[in-house]
Amino acid sequence: MGRYDRETALHAFDGQSRVIHPCAAQAKDDKPDFQGGTLRCHCHDSPVLVQINAQSQHNHLCGCSRCWKSDGALFSQIAVVPRNAVHVVENADKLGLVDPAAVIQRYACRDCGVHLVGRVESKSHGFYGLDFIHTELSADIGWSAPSFAAYVSSVVEAGFPPEQMPHLRRQLRALGLEPYDCLSPDLMDVISHHAYVRRRSEGERVSA
Amino acid sequence: MGRYDRETALHAFDGQSRVIHPCAAQAKDDKPDFQGGTLRCHCHDSPVLVQINAQSQHNHLCGCSRCWKSDGALFSQIAVVPRNAVHVVENADKLGLVDPAAVIQRYACRDCGVHLVGRVESKSHGFYGLDFIHTELSADIGWSAPSFAAYVSSVVEAGFPPEQMPHLRRQLRALGLEPYDCLSPDLMDVISHHAYVRRRSEGERVSA
Ligand SMILES: [Zn+2]
Ligand SMILES: [Zn+2]
Repeated sequence: MGRYDRETALHAFDGQSRVIHPCAAQAKDDKPDFQGGTLRCHCHDSPVLVQINAQSQHNHLCGCSRCWKSDGALFSQIAVVPRNAVHVVENADKLGLVDPAAVIQRYACRDCGVHLVGRVESKSHGFYGLDFIHTELSADIGWSAPSFAAYVSSVVEAGFPPEQMPHLRRQLRALGLEPYDCLSPDLMDVISHHAYVRRRSEGERVSA
Repeated sequence: MGRYDRETALHAFDGQSRVIHPCAAQAKDDKPDFQGGTLRCHCHDSPVLVQINAQSQHNHLCGCSRCWKSDGALFSQIAVVPRNAVHVVENADKLGLVDPAAVIQRYACRDCGVHLVGRVESKSHGFYGLDFIHTELSADIGWSAPSFAAYVSSVVEAGFPPEQMPHLRRQLRALGLEPYDCLSPDLMDVISHHAYVRRRSEGERVSA
């Protein structure tokens, strides 16, 4: 079902923040003392429910082709939480692994296709210990708001017209979402530092 | 030989543009009608000479770990030219392939270690038809100046202190070199569009 709508989104952008993401122009209502809430898939009957016992971190829009996107959205909205804060509390049997070969193991509802949680299983990955979630699946108020847009150029890979990219980047900036073609500089530095520390510890083990 | 100096550069930065790259604070002397020049390796005797019959395009600094760097530099300075504009004119026998497995096939002088040309051999690559060169190896005046800094966070992977990154990015901006953690948005869009066109043509071939 997402396919037709994704195609529509790829061609419907005309400076509309709704097409960037349905929540992009909403008021930012994050609360500093927010302690989490419940994610719910789109099934009317027997929805998958996931309890998150933590505030979301690094919430952002993502233009990559693998993250789950709301109908008609160019970008997904995605954040991380500590994996021990994530508990599937209802209809866990409906969850299936989207792509066993992906670095982020994304679990989706088999009935409605919504991704509930993405888990990094590789201990050498910079994000090990964190799960990816879509806070828009929660009716709770107080999640951290998106603060940047990642993998922006990737929407062109999916079919977005390249000549509209300057317009799209301007619109993202107008929404307070600085556009990047990878992750934000802060996160890229964290990943690079993690790679440096790992390589050094491997080097030390070899030379020891 | 570059190893010691690279280590030094990784720890010597204190807002010095010289450590970013020896040419970073030089006057930009590109001439619009410049038609190319000669690259020369660092050997005193029998240097490798490469004639370039074109102006350089997309000149930029690069923080990745694979590009050749001047002694004491955190970044390489690298540009592209059409591959048919590149001719090794002297001591071609001294050139050797650095890493046969790399996407960019980098040819270096076996005696001094300087990289003279990097060639993309894969026809499905977005940069096929272009060769990578280091314009600082030329004494000719008029090459296009670097206009941005790519793969900036990668210097952390090589050992640059993460806490100095905000300072480094500020300094790059002060030099007129906008820092990115991948390539510039223009180039990222070109690569993404190339991937889209290729995937579509492959899809059409499959369904035909
Ligand atoms: Zn569902
Ligand atoms: Zn040489």
